Amino acid sequence: MFGAIEAGGTKFVCAVGNEDGSVLERISLPTTTPEETMKEVFDFFDAFELKAIGIGSFGPIDVNRQSDTYGYITSTPKTPWKFYNFLGAVKDRYQIPVGWTTDVNAAALGELMKGAAQDVDSCVYLTVGTGVGGGAVINGKLLEGYGHPEMGHITVEQHPDETFEGFCPYHGNCLEGIAAGPAIEQRFGQKGHLLADKKEVWEMEAFYLAQALMNYTLILSPERIILGGGVMKQQQLYPLVREELVRQINGYVALPPLEEYIVTPGLGDNAGITGCLLLAAQQLS
Amino acid sequence: MFGAIEAGGTKFVCAVGNEDGSVLERISLPTTTPEETMKEVFDFFDAFELKAIGIGSFGPIDVNRQSDTYGYITSTPKTPWKFYNFLGAVKDRYQIPVGWTTDVNAAALGELMKGAAQDVDSCVYLTVGTGVGGGAVINGKLLEGYGHPEMGHITVEQHPDETFEGFCPYHGNCLEGIAAGPAIEQRFGQKGHLLADKKEVWEMEAFYLAQALMNYTLILSPERIILGGGVMKQQQLYPLVREELVRQINGYVALPPLEEYIVTPGLGDNAGITGCLLLAAQQLS
Ligand SMILES: Nc1ncnc2c1ncn2[C@@H]1O[C@H](COP(=O)(O)OP(=O)(O)O)[C@@H](O)[C@H]1O
Ligand SMILES: Nc1ncnc2c1ncn2[C@@H]1O[C@H](COP(=O)(O)OP(=O)(O)O)[C@@H](O)[C@H]1O
Ligand SMILES: [Zn+2]
Ligand SMILES: [Zn+2]
Repeated sequence: MFGAIEAGGTKFVCAVGNEDGSVLERISLPTTTPEETMKEVFDFFDAFELKAIGIGSFGPIDVNRQSDTYGYITSTPKTPWKFYNFLGAVKDRYQIPVGWTTDVNAAALGELMKGAAQDVDSCVYLTVGTGVGGGAVINGKLLEGYGHPEMGHITVEQHPDETFEGFCPYHGNCLEGIAAGPAIEQRFGQKGHLLADKKEVWEMEAFYLAQALMNYTLILSPERIILGGGVMKQQQLYPLVREELVRQINGYVALPPLEEYIVTPGLGDNAGITGCLLLAAQQLS
Repeated sequence: MFGAIEAGGTKFVCAVGNEDGSVLERISLPTTTPEETMKEVFDFFDAFELKAIGIGSFGPIDVNRQSDTYGYITSTPKTPWKFYNFLGAVKDRYQIPVGWTTDVNAAALGELMKGAAQDVDSCVYLTVGTGVGGGAVINGKLLEGYGHPEMGHITVEQHPDETFEGFCPYHGNCLEGIAAGPAIEQRFGQKGHLLADKKEVWEMEAFYLAQALMNYTLILSPERIILGGGVMKQQQLYPLVREELVRQINGYVALPPLEEYIVTPGLGDNAGITGCLLLAAQQLS
């Protein structure tokens, strides 16, 4: 049996399951402080005999094995978790192999192996919610190098009708600053789910998301891009993003058939926890 | 013995050499038509007993093994080469394994295995010349997916003092359209090498290149970025690009020490042909 921890900024999901990613038991708990939250995590896992654990964590995290802070959550605005040695704490407790990556990389792995990208070898998973975060699997392996992708913070050209200055504390109007849920709310004065029938809201959103997808396409050339997160509940965004991507790429590179290229998550909200279980299983091979 | 073809838009370099990438003999010929150029290529290789050949070609090329035009040069503006079955022609002639990728991917492989990125597992190779092209090796493997990277055509925010509309026929002011050698020449009315002491030229150039490097960093997280090509002969660009990258990323992600992160090619003009030889050798393993 394997363990999985999907550590989000507002809640943790812990599960035990099989090497094929199927969940046998799970709990969900609020993200408070490492002391409180990790106590509950350990209480849950202590009841099982685990072979390995996979962690997909909110970030930024340190994934660089050469680094002194490998396995830490790093410069998060969630103060109690700043420079918390997450991987070390789990390893100390269980003395078994522990896989460590970002929540979005784990989701990309889940989707590649059991979800919407099972028939290909590479995919990007982008979540558009309170923030914008992306992960990827390339040639079947998690995309990591000196660090991990932070695809949500790329620069984008501003829409001609833009009035909002962007909310990213680091970059102002980067993709996240201008296209995450809070940007929609601050620009239009209402939460996204109340703006469903306002055409201009989703056309502007598609303009930004398509720019991002164009850059991911030109830089990574993935076989599939999966868009998830709260904002993507607006189903009308998918066709708008596809159209806008075609307009922006302007015939320069060949794309897969668009309905197969830009898709909804196959695992719904289970992409991350499934990926964490698969990551755990990979630690033994 | 292995064969290597670095197929550029203006010249072809053919070489034979060893599995460690060392060149024993080489020729250089102008890129004219497939009939003429390939005849000379074959005349050169016919004299050797080769185990495999590696090709790094100008693009766009089709690297998708599922595609009917796998191995072709595709939508190039060089009309005689449009939809030329390059890989097929070489395979037909020699009936040995042939590796096939872009010229810049080959250069990235050469630099990773024998050049400026030997101590790491991932790098981006960007050439800034008549165009802007990028390749990458990730986890030791060439970066390819549905297609190959076209990193030169990402969107960039325009400099506040920009007066030039960009020359990319597909996107106008994408990175290549606004930062390749011809953009410098058209904007400032003189070729780059005559503008060496004009500070504003290289500050603007660094502004664009740093945006690109920021996006590559946020999306790929490579361990090293190698900048080559004619425009990078302006050595003052390296420190300017490093500074500007730091300013734009604004502390959001940890970077390697900058002098180790953004570097000149270790193999000079031999990165591509070395990579092609190594690619040839990889076909047997
Ligand atoms: N149906 C919806 N339509 C548009 N926006 C939505 C919808 N549901 C949630 N959102 C927005 O998505 C964001 C929350 O994203 P979500 O992915 O649910 O959480 P998180 O990113 O915190 O994990 C909020 O900004 C919210 O306004
Ligand atoms: N010393 C230099 N300083 C600035 N620009 C240069 C210099 N040398 C060449 N260039 C520019 O680089 C471009 C040629 O790039 P190069 O890499 O040599 O060839 P290509 O991209 O065609 O393979 C031209 O636009 C040229 O003006
Ligand atoms: Zn940002
Ligand atoms: Zn372009």
